[in-house]
This record gives sequence, structure tokens and C-alpha cells, in this order.
Amino acid sequence: MQRIRTLEVRSHIGERIRVTGWLQSLRQMGGIDFLVLRDGWGTLQAVAENEAEIAPLIESAAGVESVIAIEGDVVAMSQAPGGVELHKLSIEVITPVMEVLPISLNKRKITANLTTLLDHAAVTNRNLARRAVLRLGAGVMAGFRAVLMVRDFTEIQTPKIVVTATESGASTFKLDYFGRTAFLAQSPQFYKQIMVGVFERVFEVGPVFRAEPHDTTRHINEYVSLDVEFGFIENHFTVMALLRDVIAGIIGHLGEYYAAELELLRVAMPVVAEEIPHIHFSDAQELILRRHGVDVRGEPDLSPQDERWLGEWAKQEFDSDFLYVTGYPMRKRPFYTYPDPQRPQYSNSFDLLFRGTELVTGGQRLHLYADYLAALEKAHLPIEPFESYLEAFRYGMPPEGGFAIGLERLLMQLTGAPNIRLTTTFPRDLNRLTP
Amino acid sequence: MQRIRTLEVRSHIGERIRVTGWLQSLRQMGGIDFLVLRDGWGTLQAVAENEAEIAPLIESAAGVESVIAIEGDVVAMSQAPGGVELHKLSIEVITPVMEVLPISLNKRKITANLTTLLDHAAVTNRNLARRAVLRLGAGVMAGFRAVLMVRDFTEIQTPKIVVTATESGASTFKLDYFGRTAFLAQSPQFYKQIMVGVFERVFEVGPVFRAEPHDTTRHINEYVSLDVEFGFIENHFTVMALLRDVIAGIIGHLGEYYAAELELLRVAMPVVAEEIPHIHFSDAQELILRRHGVDVRGEPDLSPQDERWLGEWAKQEFDSDFLYVTGYPMRKRPFYTYPDPQRPQYSNSFDLLFRGTELVTGGQRLHLYADYLAALEKAHLPIEPFESYLEAFRYGMPPEGGFAIGLERLLMQLTGAPNIRLTTTFPRDLNRLTP
Repeated sequence: MQRIRTLEVRSHIGERIRVTGWLQSLRQMGGIDFLVLRDGWGTLQAVAENEAEIAPLIESAAGVESVIAIEGDVVAMSQAPGGVELHKLSIEVITPVMEVLPISLNKRKITANLTTLLDHAAVTNRNLARRAVLRLGAGVMAGFRAVLMVRDFTEIQTPKIVVTATESGASTFKLDYFGRTAFLAQSPQFYKQIMVGVFERVFEVGPVFRAEPHDTTRHINEYVSLDVEFGFIENHFTVMALLRDVIAGIIGHLGEYYAAELELLRVAMPVVAEEIPHIHFSDAQELILRRHGVDVRGEPDLSPQDERWLGEWAKQEFDSDFLYVTGYPMRKRPFYTYPDPQRPQYSNSFDLLFRGTELVTGGQRLHLYADYLAALEKAHLPIEPFESYLEAFRYGMPPEGGFAIGLERLLMQLTGAPNIRLTTTFPRDLNRLTP
Repeated sequence: MQRIRTLEVRSHIGERIRVTGWLQSLRQMGGIDFLVLRDGWGTLQAVAENEAEIAPLIESAAGVESVIAIEGDVVAMSQAPGGVELHKLSIEVITPVMEVLPISLNKRKITANLTTLLDHAAVTNRNLARRAVLRLGAGVMAGFRAVLMVRDFTEIQTPKIVVTATESGASTFKLDYFGRTAFLAQSPQFYKQIMVGVFERVFEVGPVFRAEPHDTTRHINEYVSLDVEFGFIENHFTVMALLRDVIAGIIGHLGEYYAAELELLRVAMPVVAEEIPHIHFSDAQELILRRHGVDVRGEPDLSPQDERWLGEWAKQEFDSDFLYVTGYPMRKRPFYTYPDPQRPQYSNSFDLLFRGTELVTGGQRLHLYADYLAALEKAHLPIEPFESYLEAFRYGMPPEGGFAIGLERLLMQLTGAPNIRLTTTFPRDLNRLTP
């Protein structure tokens, strides 16, 4: 008999079907055995009214997480999860598991401590709630690509083994490349800019590597970056308008195709307004002084507390989960940042705050070769390591800009995960290299 | 005036429009100036009948690759490339370029030597033929994902910084990870298998790193791998059936959405039969003896010459550009390979040859924990580094398998590129780390 998936069982009421998957739980109540089978998409309850039906499990000593097939009659049953269950079972054990699980997968949320969860990620990832977070990650990538492909952006893949750090030399992983020293790319920044000279509009989904020795709940050392860069912009507001559409597209895609995961995780979906409110960095600092009596004017960046305050303000003032802060001071932004033509100590850059935390950084970049030479000199950086990068500008680039979304950061904020490590399949942090 | 793209010009005949892009060429013929403007998608010819029209270029000394905007009247002109051209030009110089290009971009194919081309990849990638190859790469990724998402595969992203080599320790790049030694992943093999225990059907598009000191036309040290893995298979023929659909889907996607690139590159598109012919490894060796008088029986692998002969045979016998070779000897396959139950010296694995060259490797994997322990012992490998990986099998895995397609190898074979380095944005090889 052809196997059907748990998702599809509801449309087979009254029929005999075959499902396959993992035995998530088996419990006895009043002489009746309740089995829950989990496949790659959902779960299904199966009810054995006599011992003979579950004999194959008993005989092979197959416990939870055994891979099994069940044939049974589909019965509508309002009190069963999903409204259907299987009766008159015929069970086949495909792969018996006899060992005790390192963590229990039976509950919606697993409760072991973080180290245990991550040590056993191979098993932890099978938990329904955790799996839902990871599947939302797939949805974010799909939504991101869909929005950009409709706008004729071209997907690129750029090298991760590089010789020039994009941000600062201190936070890159060093690599032995056939006897030479190389680095792991901190971002595809230089390459995506170069590729604007080729395709005008590009995006990349790929790993980035940060050797920052942070040990916090919101940092990991390898993460997935959703990068965008495009030419013929007016200024950073052109970039912000595209980012608004990308975020709206991702949220819309999740709502349309990932309703089960969002429901399981009880995600409160944000509304993305036609225009996301924005505030200039210097006005944000004034606002904080006025509302909270804390004078952060003169600080070159916003603190996490500042961001939370601004997030609250955006919620109260505009009923928005999102807020753009524009015009960060040039001295905290990388050398390729485009200055505000009116107030050159500020930049044509922005952060997007989501529920009071920075989610995206972006802005307009320099595009004139002469401006790059001047910017490198001002930053006391040598030209030589940047020569290939500069070639793109030497031979003609339009005004351009872009942004980068951290996939795990977005998942963390969206699902309310207490730790970013829980939003990725196999996290890498200061201490963790396995699994 | 709103800019339109070169692609769209044909539907504006008789109107005045504005296009922006790069000045690809400017030549005089009989007192008339012919300009070719290139934007991110195509090119457009513009014709200046008097000096005044191109005065902005002359005044700013703007040469080829300058970024410009042209307003003009769209005129149907059968002898012009694309059948339209612009007249009565009004030119604006956005970014003037005064320097001489390191390579000429004007021809369909660029002729500089490979080193020059790759040294100046930032410029080389702007060449129309080269750009078309790179854009086909985007199409391959999109087609790959489309086929798999329809089949409810989940996209994953797995770590590239790892502690265990999937193939052999000799060919991995070593990394300093906060004072510990780590490696760059040679493939997502272990992780994608683990994730079959979570989602059943997974795929990944991402970089892989091979520290093999090959200096050939078909090896690079960082490439993009299109990986698939899924559970509840019968054997490797289930995997081969899926791969057939994936290849057909990719080819179909390219044909549908990338016609301009395929035409520019004069790609002869392969036909993917409903069932791709297959031959067992041992029969393939017999065939080579019979047809070519060369006795390769007893060899544990096929040579490039063997593959070419088999490719010719498949073309003659089945009129197929593709051929599966199944049952490679176990001793040349990695420890996780599933043996042929009938002839355990052979494996349930396969290669897919495309026009006589290996394009994809795949097969059924072991799925029983006890089999893994035995296989590691047989391969004289310690258990400890594989413990997290083994956990997936310890706690229940169905029969499973998968494959990996090398993106650049596929592009090379498809477009007939003479060197794999020409199929990727910024190649990494034994000697090359820049740009």
C-alpha cells in the first residue's frame, strides 16, 4: 500500500491507509494503547484496542523514535489531535530503537537545559516546536528570494575564503590556504557591490563568519545572511523602501505557507505598514532625553536600551513593530558608507529595529572611485588589499546601496526564542563546535 | 522621466524613453555615432546624428563603462540588434570613467588569457557571455529549489565550520577557531543525513571547500553544492528517480526563463528522458573491453576516458546525454555507503554522467546504527568524532539516500566552458585567492 503523509490523512476518512514515520509516543490508558506517529510534516494519533495490534513493537522491543509503518482505518474523532485517528492497526517496525532518548521529545516544548539541547541537536531538532522554528527559517529564505526574483534581482554565490576582512581584522577566522593565510568572509559586502556592476540588482543567501568572542543570547559565530545590493538608487531611502517590501514579502509568505508552524509556536505576526516610520539618529537621541531623561547625545551608537525605548515609542506612536533609525554617525560606520551630503558627520545609512532590536543594517555606499581612495586614506587603510574591490568603482558604478538581514536574528525576534542558538540547526559559538 | 530597462524598450516604439546603464561601446561610422548601452539585463543601441548629442560624453571625457542615462525616441530598425534603437539623444553622465579597461568588453566573447580574465573578474563578469553563464547559475539554483519545494522538501542551512571531515582528513582546510583546530566542511553530508531524521526530505544550496591540490580545468577549491537527502526510499533507484526529475526540472526551468542567456551562449540543451538509462559498474567495464579492447575490469573506479566512452555509448545506444552508472565498488565509496545486498562488494550508489563526465554522485546510505558501528570499524575509523552524527541513527532513521550536484560542473558541461573557473563569480584555486 502506498504511504500517505500525516498532512493528507484528513481527506481519507473511512479509508484504510498506510502512514510511516517515527513513534513519538506510546501510552496506555484503560487498556487502550495510544500511539503518536510523527512524519516529516505532522503527527497522527493511532489507537490500538488490543495487545495484538502493538505486538510488533513489543516483540522487537521498539521504543519511542523507532521508525514504523502503520496501516489503519481513518476515523473522524473530534477529541483527537487534528480531528482524525487510526483504528484497527497493522504495525510494521522499520527501524527499532531500544535506547532511552537523551531528551524527551513528547512535549510541545522541550525543557532540558540549553547545553543538553544543543549537545543532542540531532535529536532536539526533531521536537515539533524546534522543527517549526527551523522550517520557518526555510520560509524566510523562500519569501526573501520570491520578493527579489519578482523584481528581477539575480542570485549570486560569492567566495567565503577571502584575503580582506570587510569590517575589522580582529574579528575574522584565520585559515591555512595551501600554506597562505586567508580568512573566512565576515559578509559578502565587497563581492555583492562588485556584482552590482554586473547585474545591477543582486542577492545572496549564505553563511557568514564572525570571530567575535561574544557569549550572549543573541550572538553566534556562524550565521546565515540574507544580502541585497542594487544600483541606480536615489539615496538610502530607496534602499529602505525595498527593504520594507522584502520584510512585508517574507511575513506574507510565512502567513500564506507556514500557518501550521506559526500556530504551533503561537507567533504574533507583525503588521508591516505601507511605509515604516523613520527617525534620524540625532532626533532619536533627543527623543530619549525628552522621554526618559537620559542624555545619550554625543554617543556614536545606540545601546540595546536605547533601541528598546525607540521600539516602545514606535509601537505607541505609530502602532508599528518596525522603526527605521537613519543617519548613524559616519565614525561608527564602515569606510564604504555614503555620507549625508547636508551633514557629512552623519551617514546615508540606517538600521531597521524590529520590536526594539536591530534586525537589519543597510544604506547607501560610496560609488565614485575617488571617494573610495579618500575614504580609505581617512580610515588609515592601505589601498593594496582592496584593489580588486576598487576595480569595480574605477570602471564605473552607479549610485548604489543595500542591506543584510540576519536569518537567525529575525527568527529569534519573530518567534520570541530566548536564545538565538535555538533558531539554527547546529549553532557555532565561542565554546561550541559540535554537533 | 522614469527609467525603463533595455528589456522593455521594444514595447515603447514611437515613444520617448529614458534608459540607464553602462556605455559599452561608442564608435563613429560616416559621421554618425553609435552607442551601445548595457544595463543589468541587456543592451540597446543609440544613434547620435550630430556631435551635440554626445557632447556630455566628450566634455566629461567619459569613455566606455561610464554610467550614463540616455533619453531618446524609440525607433524600430530591423538591422539594429534587438530590432530597435534610440534616436535624438539626450545624454547625462552619471559616473564618468576615464581609464582604459584592463580587458575589452565589447565582443560577445572576451579573448584575454585566463589569468588576466580572472585577475580582473570585477570587470570580466560584466561581459555579456560571462554574465549569461553566471545568470544561468542563478537559474540552476532556482530550478533546483522549485522542483524540490513542490515535493515538500525543506531547505536547510548547516554549519561550514566543523570538526569532522566527511571524506578524508587530508583534503580539508584547517581553521583556527578561538584557539582550537576546526575544518571547513567538505560537504553537508553528515548534517543533511541528520536532518532526514527531522524533516524526512531536505535540500541545501551552499559552499563546500576542498583542499585538494589539483590544478586542472575542472577543479576549484570552493564550489557551490546542490545537496539533497531524503528518507523512506526503497534503494538507490528511488534516489535516481528523484534526481532525474530534478535534472529535468532544472533544464526545464532554464528553457522557460533563461532563453536569452541560452541563445547568447548557443547552448545545446539536453533532452532528459522519462527514464535515464543505467548500467552497472561491472557491466560498464565489460562494455569497455568489448567496444574498445581495453580491460579495465578490476579497477575500482572509472577513469575520465572510461566516462567519455560510456557517454558516447549512451548517446549512440539511447540518444541520451545522461547515463547512470550504478554499483560502484564499496572500497572506493565512503563508509556510510549502503552495500548491494546481493553482491556486497558493490554498493547501492551511482554516478550520473552528463555528456561523458561525472556530474552527480549519490546513493543509498546506511541507516542502522549497528551498521554504522561496523562500517567505521571496517574503515579503521574511531567512533568518537562521529558521535553526534551517529546519534541520528541511534535514535531511529528510515532507509535513506541522496545526492550532490556541483553547480559549476553542471554549468561547465552545459555551456561548454573550457575551464570551470569561468563558471563562477570569483574562483578559488591552488594559486588564486583574489579577487
